[in-house]
Amino acid sequence: MATDTCVFDSSDSVRSAVPLKYAQHVTFKEPLALKEGGSLPSVRVTFETYGTLNAKADNAILVCHALSGDSHVARHVPDDTVGWWEIVVGPGKPIDTDRYFVICPNLLGGCRGTTGPNSLNPETGRPYGPDFPVITVRDMVEVQKLLVEHLGIRRLRAVVGGSLGGQVALTWATQLPEMVAGTVALATSPRLTSQAMAFDVVGRNAILRDPAYQDGQYYGNGPGPTVGLSIARMLGHITYLSREAMIEKFDAHRMQPRQVQTQFETRFSVGSYLAYQGDKFVERFDANSYLALTMAIDLFDLGDTREEIRQSLASSQCRWLLMSFSTDWLFPPFQSEKMVAALIAEQKPISYCSVKSNCGHDAFLLADDLPIYGEMMRAFLANLDRADRAPADDTVEETALDELSCQDPTSIFHSRRLDYDSIIELIPTGASVLDLGCGNGGLLTRLRRHGCRQIIGIELDERAIVACVRRGLDVVQGDLDHGLSAFADGQFDFVVLSQTLQAVMDVPGVLKEILRVGRQGIISFPNIGYWKLRKHLYEEGRAPRAGSLLGYQWYNSPNVRFLSIADFEDFCSDNKIKIHQQVALDTEAGCKVHDDPNLNADMAIVVISR
Amino acid sequence: MATDTCVFDSSDSVRSAVPLKYAQHVTFKEPLALKEGGSLPSVRVTFETYGTLNAKADNAILVCHALSGDSHVARHVPDDTVGWWEIVVGPGKPIDTDRYFVICPNLLGGCRGTTGPNSLNPETGRPYGPDFPVITVRDMVEVQKLLVEHLGIRRLRAVVGGSLGGQVALTWATQLPEMVAGTVALATSPRLTSQAMAFDVVGRNAILRDPAYQDGQYYGNGPGPTVGLSIARMLGHITYLSREAMIEKFDAHRMQPRQVQTQFETRFSVGSYLAYQGDKFVERFDANSYLALTMAIDLFDLGDTREEIRQSLASSQCRWLLMSFSTDWLFPPFQSEKMVAALIAEQKPISYCSVKSNCGHDAFLLADDLPIYGEMMRAFLANLDRADRAPADDTVEETALDELSCQDPTSIFHSRRLDYDSIIELIPTGASVLDLGCGNGGLLTRLRRHGCRQIIGIELDERAIVACVRRGLDVVQGDLDHGLSAFADGQFDFVVLSQTLQAVMDVPGVLKEILRVGRQGIISFPNIGYWKLRKHLYEEGRAPRAGSLLGYQWYNSPNVRFLSIADFEDFCSDNKIKIHQQVALDTEAGCKVHDDPNLNADMAIVVISR
Repeated sequence: MATDTCVFDSSDSVRSAVPLKYAQHVTFKEPLALKEGGSLPSVRVTFETYGTLNAKADNAILVCHALSGDSHVARHVPDDTVGWWEIVVGPGKPIDTDRYFVICPNLLGGCRGTTGPNSLNPETGRPYGPDFPVITVRDMVEVQKLLVEHLGIRRLRAVVGGSLGGQVALTWATQLPEMVAGTVALATSPRLTSQAMAFDVVGRNAILRDPAYQDGQYYGNGPGPTVGLSIARMLGHITYLSREAMIEKFDAHRMQPRQVQTQFETRFSVGSYLAYQGDKFVERFDANSYLALTMAIDLFDLGDTREEIRQSLASSQCRWLLMSFSTDWLFPPFQSEKMVAALIAEQKPISYCSVKSNCGHDAFLLADDLPIYGEMMRAFLANLDRADRAPADDTVEETALDELSCQDPTSIFHSRRLDYDSIIELIPTGASVLDLGCGNGGLLTRLRRHGCRQIIGIELDERAIVACVRRGLDVVQGDLDHGLSAFADGQFDFVVLSQTLQAVMDVPGVLKEILRVGRQGIISFPNIGYWKLRKHLYEEGRAPRAGSLLGYQWYNSPNVRFLSIADFEDFCSDNKIKIHQQVALDTEAGCKVHDDPNLNADMAIVVISR
Repeated sequence: MATDTCVFDSSDSVRSAVPLKYAQHVTFKEPLALKEGGSLPSVRVTFETYGTLNAKADNAILVCHALSGDSHVARHVPDDTVGWWEIVVGPGKPIDTDRYFVICPNLLGGCRGTTGPNSLNPETGRPYGPDFPVITVRDMVEVQKLLVEHLGIRRLRAVVGGSLGGQVALTWATQLPEMVAGTVALATSPRLTSQAMAFDVVGRNAILRDPAYQDGQYYGNGPGPTVGLSIARMLGHITYLSREAMIEKFDAHRMQPRQVQTQFETRFSVGSYLAYQGDKFVERFDANSYLALTMAIDLFDLGDTREEIRQSLASSQCRWLLMSFSTDWLFPPFQSEKMVAALIAEQKPISYCSVKSNCGHDAFLLADDLPIYGEMMRAFLANLDRADRAPADDTVEETALDELSCQDPTSIFHSRRLDYDSIIELIPTGASVLDLGCGNGGLLTRLRRHGCRQIIGIELDERAIVACVRRGLDVVQGDLDHGLSAFADGQFDFVVLSQTLQAVMDVPGVLKEILRVGRQGIISFPNIGYWKLRKHLYEEGRAPRAGSLLGYQWYNSPNVRFLSIADFEDFCSDNKIKIHQQVALDTEAGCKVHDDPNLNADMAIVVISR
């Protein structure tokens, strides 16, 4: 998105107020009681659909737009207007309209067909304007429920949305749990940060204090608060982009503004961009809708602490996929991570990735990071499918996944993981397991086949996470050196740290966390006491290394800790850690070692507990 | 600053428009030609002074305020109004008015006494208003020069400022180099990011498009564009705080606004804060000044690339102290680091620290981080003193600094550094030296005494950097694993990496950088080939460690690389690195080792080059 030609192509506003040629409309004539009080006498919903509802009516996906979106999520025919999520929704795309029946309604309070402040108030015969009641995201969901039922759907395959759309998806999952099989929420949060809320406040003040706002009844009286709405929109645009993206877009030509017809300042490149965005927006958006929707966003609140968020999410019965974007400072990743922790604490099936991105909040609308977030979504949706069918054939999967060999930064072996066999032997069928540094999910897949019930992986690498989600595994992005704070005390029967201890900086911290979260820990590591390594240092006077075991040099190894079995035993004894079982391997010979493991084994697997 | 009572105490606006009781005024009646064209027929300057100018008139420090500041930097008497930098300026404070003569003028274009848009235009007899010409930071400095000369000062001991004040300080150093001995610029940048500029643009648009702006001639015609100016100020306040600070201030009570008399929205806690700040600001600040000063900030441009910034800073003849704050997203640290790199490339004496802070851009005005930035400033100013006296007595210094023993995260010895003696022997008098991981500056101090000319240290720890600055050393904050990109090819005769290689993750990268930047590298490291270590692993089957040499356990050591002298030799040979000289030590015995160093030495010092 850094090229010159697309300076003004923020995907959130590529279209001006085009007619919604393929939109459908339905009016619900019962009064709708609102959560903050008051009611609406009737509600009209404008929506578009894509694909075909199957006979069981179980392939419907509800797509929820963000603040300034509408029902036109994608093209219906090749020469149709481009939709706001064209790259995600369509035949063969991550939300595949060849497989799914996609519904995208305009949100309650919007200004593109669904009842909002610019709708006629049947009680007065003029637009609601400032009399439009305070609406919440819960009200929006209530209206969408009416639509979904109207379409003959009792349970949605998935609800998908980003930003405000993500708040809507979160609300579906918790408010109507029995109606949602899967929830995909991107670039969203349990509630806004005070910083994000502050921008909304300033934007609303700009509208409310614009004299042309006329206390909200500007319809038919001039153009309305176009200056205030433009100011709000300019501000919004700053927050949708990352600093890095703005530097890329504007810095090289900061003093060369584009030629824009505007009454706003255009001295600088970024100024002409903002002026353009502000002016364009007022052509297609209603200021009262802006007020209503941003207020709903600001009022959205699943809580701040994990306990509060747990309570909010406890009712959900769906599978979860959450994604955030590293440079999104409006809905920063740490907020998604709070929800992840809450869902884990509630033992809900959850996968999560903070996608490394340059694009800021807008990332979820842009093509730049689609290879990660789109594929994650596609894989997640496919496994919602599969949950209705026979259990997955893991063998086939593994073969298919070989091509997706991402480099696991902590793996020592480049070939088959010999320690897996022994680890699986140590874990009884039915146990719950957390696998730290789970890579592509090889061990987790085998544990699933082994009959383990709650199995979760932690992994840092994005592509490995995609691979795990493809396998239908629950995997959460995380860095071991930052602890396991997402997990509750004693949440798992076993926590596995296979071939990773030697790459961990804070060894005591990680082991402490393992023994807090798991009733037992299973730790496998290479043994520096192995006779070949001893001999090498002793005779050669060179740092220990031995082909298959430590295939690195002293200067480029990801491994930063060197320990022998005896060292580990000493550590356990000093720290009152119990050793229950110990398996020693000679991986070159491919056998277990019983005689003097500290000398004869090149790898150890130790089962510990407090 | 996180307590409840100070929610509205952003130090940038504690005072409403109080009378400047101790202000002095001087009018320069010559026309002032402006850099962007046009001129001012005459200029009045309002300023305050503190302390006493000494007989040589060489103890004057010019303090430059930021966007909304004025001449009242501190109290003159105990019952005086609090000044905007009360914590920094005063008797015994970092800018010690018992030692220095402090001058703080209101900036050109301001609205607190110095000529600005609200001053009478002598040519029309009414306020300049929109006719006030475009001014730049260079014009501000031109006016300050008139004042400084008027006060009988030919050379300033230092120019100090943050934010816009930092831009002013940077401009003094480069535009009037012969008049500045030292420059202290905090929380500033060579030019704004496009993101920071965008906020200014939106703020200006809010003012310019407020109907009450009346094309700028609102003086005497109502209250002026108070809504637009308030909106701009609210926006400013969001950018002055870090997200973390906003969460601390507002999140716990987000739905409980303070009671504020205002026409702005006050539904949320952060909203009542912004409303209060906006309303307060318009009582003391002029909208046209806001336009003029923010435009000057946006036009300020020392360049983007290092080469451009080098050219801008090349003319300076002062000693430099730059400081940024980790959570300042308006003037982010990476921008200061560009200036640091440019100054280093120009071989200017520069110290730099990115202060770890929670406070965002406002940090430089707040007490939270004063122990670091204040002490850094105090030490830097003291050494500008000293430069005029005899060279520092390092012995005295070192004793005094013992108490300041910060934990050097990469040091292996806890006692006297035995390797220093040998390193100094290897470096000829007069050589230029870069010391990587310089700690408190122990080696650098000895090298200075040894007669080395250009000596610079790199260090991560803030307190160690303060210690170095106290010693009058040039030290720059940096992380070795991020490379030495600030330094030019072959810039130093020697680059020293003493007892740090073993804590470096990217060994090949760091060594490559050392040999790019230095004609020779001097690397000291502990030798894992030492017979006691070999014996320990061989006989005990435990990770090598030996009392004095590696005083850590396998699980808690900062050391992540284990190498022998032979390993290092192999690496050099494989990578075509020449070894010029090698000193092997037995540090327990305190002697050099000549016989089979890889077996008999516990430490090696190797001089290498490409």
